[in-house]
Amino acid sequence: MVEGRDIDDLPKNEANYTALTPLWFLDRAALVHPNRKSLIHGSVHYTWLQTYQRCRRFACALSNHSITYGKTVAVVAPNIPALYEAHFGVPMAGAVLNTVNVRLNAPTISFLLQHSSAAVVMVDQEFFPLAEEALKIWADKMKSNFQPPLLVVIADESCDPKSLKYALGRGAIEYEKFLETGDPEFAWKPPQDEWYSIALGYTSGTTASPKGVVLHHRGAYLMSLSGALIWGMTEGAVYLWTLPMFHCNGWCFPWTLAALCGTSICLRQVTAKAVYSAIAKYGVTHFCAAPVVLNTIVNASPDDTILPLPHVVHVMTAGAAPPPSVLSAMTERGFRVTHTYGLSETYGPSTICAWKPEWDALPLETQARLNARQGVRYIALEGLDVVNTQDMMSVPADGTTVGEIVMRGNLVMKGYLKNPKANAETFANGWFHSGDLGVKHPDGYIEIKDRSKDIIISGGENISSVEIENMLYTHPAVLEASVVARPDKRWGETPCAFVTLKPGFDKSNEQKLAEDIMKFCRSKLPAYWVPKSVVFGPLPKTATGKVQKHLLRTKAKEMGSVSVSRL
Amino acid sequence: MVEGRDIDDLPKNEANYTALTPLWFLDRAALVHPNRKSLIHGSVHYTWLQTYQRCRRFACALSNHSITYGKTVAVVAPNIPALYEAHFGVPMAGAVLNTVNVRLNAPTISFLLQHSSAAVVMVDQEFFPLAEEALKIWADKMKSNFQPPLLVVIADESCDPKSLKYALGRGAIEYEKFLETGDPEFAWKPPQDEWYSIALGYTSGTTASPKGVVLHHRGAYLMSLSGALIWGMTEGAVYLWTLPMFHCNGWCFPWTLAALCGTSICLRQVTAKAVYSAIAKYGVTHFCAAPVVLNTIVNASPDDTILPLPHVVHVMTAGAAPPPSVLSAMTERGFRVTHTYGLSETYGPSTICAWKPEWDALPLETQARLNARQGVRYIALEGLDVVNTQDMMSVPADGTTVGEIVMRGNLVMKGYLKNPKANAETFANGWFHSGDLGVKHPDGYIEIKDRSKDIIISGGENISSVEIENMLYTHPAVLEASVVARPDKRWGETPCAFVTLKPGFDKSNEQKLAEDIMKFCRSKLPAYWVPKSVVFGPLPKTATGKVQKHLLRTKAKEMGSVSVSRL
Repeated sequence: MVEGRDIDDLPKNEANYTALTPLWFLDRAALVHPNRKSLIHGSVHYTWLQTYQRCRRFACALSNHSITYGKTVAVVAPNIPALYEAHFGVPMAGAVLNTVNVRLNAPTISFLLQHSSAAVVMVDQEFFPLAEEALKIWADKMKSNFQPPLLVVIADESCDPKSLKYALGRGAIEYEKFLETGDPEFAWKPPQDEWYSIALGYTSGTTASPKGVVLHHRGAYLMSLSGALIWGMTEGAVYLWTLPMFHCNGWCFPWTLAALCGTSICLRQVTAKAVYSAIAKYGVTHFCAAPVVLNTIVNASPDDTILPLPHVVHVMTAGAAPPPSVLSAMTERGFRVTHTYGLSETYGPSTICAWKPEWDALPLETQARLNARQGVRYIALEGLDVVNTQDMMSVPADGTTVGEIVMRGNLVMKGYLKNPKANAETFANGWFHSGDLGVKHPDGYIEIKDRSKDIIISGGENISSVEIENMLYTHPAVLEASVVARPDKRWGETPCAFVTLKPGFDKSNEQKLAEDIMKFCRSKLPAYWVPKSVVFGPLPKTATGKVQKHLLRTKAKEMGSVSVSRL
Repeated sequence: MVEGRDIDDLPKNEANYTALTPLWFLDRAALVHPNRKSLIHGSVHYTWLQTYQRCRRFACALSNHSITYGKTVAVVAPNIPALYEAHFGVPMAGAVLNTVNVRLNAPTISFLLQHSSAAVVMVDQEFFPLAEEALKIWADKMKSNFQPPLLVVIADESCDPKSLKYALGRGAIEYEKFLETGDPEFAWKPPQDEWYSIALGYTSGTTASPKGVVLHHRGAYLMSLSGALIWGMTEGAVYLWTLPMFHCNGWCFPWTLAALCGTSICLRQVTAKAVYSAIAKYGVTHFCAAPVVLNTIVNASPDDTILPLPHVVHVMTAGAAPPPSVLSAMTERGFRVTHTYGLSETYGPSTICAWKPEWDALPLETQARLNARQGVRYIALEGLDVVNTQDMMSVPADGTTVGEIVMRGNLVMKGYLKNPKANAETFANGWFHSGDLGVKHPDGYIEIKDRSKDIIISGGENISSVEIENMLYTHPAVLEASVVARPDKRWGETPCAFVTLKPGFDKSNEQKLAEDIMKFCRSKLPAYWVPKSVVFGPLPKTATGKVQKHLLRTKAKEMGSVSVSRL
């Protein structure tokens, strides 16, 4: 025994060490608040005791089919209770949850199911034909080697009964029937190791083919608690599901809600009216939303709006930086917007634009500009930096030198599934490489300037498409804007703006409006940043509300020299 | 590669795994809120940037003296900034912090220093003679083998300058001078392993000899976050240091405050007046206090009181269950009391009497009775039960069957230092044994009935001294009460009550008051529970406000059959 060191000679034992997992949160919620509402979906209301019993049934039913450690369960569903329950039921059986974006097409879903070797496919009745088609593609490919996964269809009273009948006719088990085969007192086991996988999610793939992001119990646990702490969410919070749970496990909030014994309000479809009425009806305290949803909320017609809000509503947003004008408008309406940033690879948001009390006294516009930055690391993310990837040195905190945003610590994924090449690249030099370009401000807050591929290079100079977009959003006629590079014989590339107009603006004279917008930009931006083309029309988006810039880039390439056209 | 299992084939790497440690919280606080107040102590105000720089200096200065991994630093001080800083500076150097209760006597402190092989002794100037005496005892014992630890004296402007002069004359380094030897940009390292020890604290030892409780970085991290979540503490909380930091690392709140970028208000001496004025002056939102402090607060004279409170103040209490009457009085004054329970061995409180909304409608008295229970497990404690220690089976949740309270999970200590026998006993059968006896109520909440040694056995029947105490507290004349067993020839033991009276009650007729109190008890309790003796006088207490029942037991043994006497 080394005398000076024996203070570290105390080993782990059964009493003082347990794998971190969010699953214990559910056990606790059912004990502490058995009668409190856990989930509300239309006329369906569950308490925490019921949710715990349903999840134990679910885990038991899966175990009865040998769906345990190492097996993957895919769920294709919008924000309905069964998807929430899958966040507990699947890992309680020891298996891994793969939430599938319902807006993907059948070939892509087929790819995911095969890539993850899905042992079970659970699908909301509305999306059954989509899943069936995906399975058929997979089966055709595998031929006699195809081992069909267990197929479970989830009934939802708000859907057309025909689609359920169809699914049952195709041999799927109905989810409630499946639960009935499980024991509500099932003795589930926590993972043996907190590094075991809990969830798998595929990147939305705006550019490359989908990559399977694997998350572990430890990270899910830490993210669940961090999310609550960083956002000031306390015990009994009422959370509205505007953010899809299939998107990066709803940023781990299904588990956070159990830790806080809070209440989830499901929302099958997100509209401004539904958001405002849930706030009034259920006392919603928190929701998360992509900037596009914020846009919908601030531009909602008065008929769909309930203002002033009956209480402060906290909104977490991430994805593309919401334009300052949208942030200002939300604040004016009484929403408190927390701006975060992250990736599927970091369990969702892992940086926050932490609000400083000294900002309270600033003009709303300045507040919005400061709050539009990506900010600082979450409590449970230990490293965040902007680096020159040539030498991995930090860029100066000058607000102008661009580098790559990198992260490290306990909120970084295990890695990509079956993709050693991508893992080697993404984890190079001991950091997770976000692929996003940004700067560090003198106050240490980071700000995204662009994804590397979104930078426009004009006459050898870098132009930030995000900054042009932010400027466009302050124009009174602009509802949404996205800027990409358009080939230019003289300059190599020049900015091309794709714009949708607010209601009431005259579309009959688009030429004039385009000129007006360019003039507006000339008064605010360096000349070479001013879009040489303005295109009006709806923007193509991913399921999670991200603008699909690769489609716009293709469009811009095809455009020639026309400065105004329809998308 | 096992096809079904490769979802778990993704190893840890530098980018996605870091040891959990609360030290990163400080780095983050200094980045996010560099100019916000971290610590206020009289005229001394520090910002988070300053605190970070001071702690880095501290860690560097220790490293310069080779005080790193495996070494222990003892601090003998009340709630002053240096003790707060030690919670970061010491582990940032890789060493282990041993906070020493300033109310211990020199022989006991000598035992602790020797047992923990203290390499540094830091002592507040007021307590320097105490530390010097303890060191002398140690030196005398070791003779020529004595390796004197580095001696640092902490100056405090509120103390008599003579004591500082004395300490400097005895060769101690002044703390500020010591900090000056360190680099404010010191590149501290997080622990290589989150299981490494961060702190050592000795049990207050109301009965047995002190045991050294060893805590690790992982547990300190999880407790810091749990404490905030369980208590609804959010970013920027203002925390008053009524609870000694030397007591179980102030229940890990030094680290919590850094995670929340909050502000600590130091308090060298706790009085009702100081508490009320700190609430008014600094906007204190939270403080922790032993029940004896609550008692002081509710019985403060109007001159010392600022009521109504300017805002809700959250109070966490633990230790002995506060009597319902005290809980009611706190609520009436506008304090929101959260009742928790735990031990040094569980990083402080690890159970909470979680409030249920349905209790809001109950009479205040009933609320207080429900809230006086020890409740349910913290979020980060995975196991809590009341068991029959014969077979480790759970007792029925009937509110009456008594068993031992046991815990397990991530909030349980590493173990006792150099005490394999105690470790084997305390970790028997895969649980941590609290030594406290309790029941489980039908709602799953646990309630302490007594420490095993506090149960009174009268005529073969168990009597709970806590329940008699709770009853005594509802008597209008009783300020404090403690009940122990007194030997009885006929019944073996009978309850003996030690009582202090509220101001204004006539002490000249104690015989009549004693009879009145016994009559009061007879109207409320089973006959054999009624104290056969009532003794008036101040109660002996430990440094943390726990009544020293072993002294009362000795007193009761010595008493003979007198039913009224002075303590």
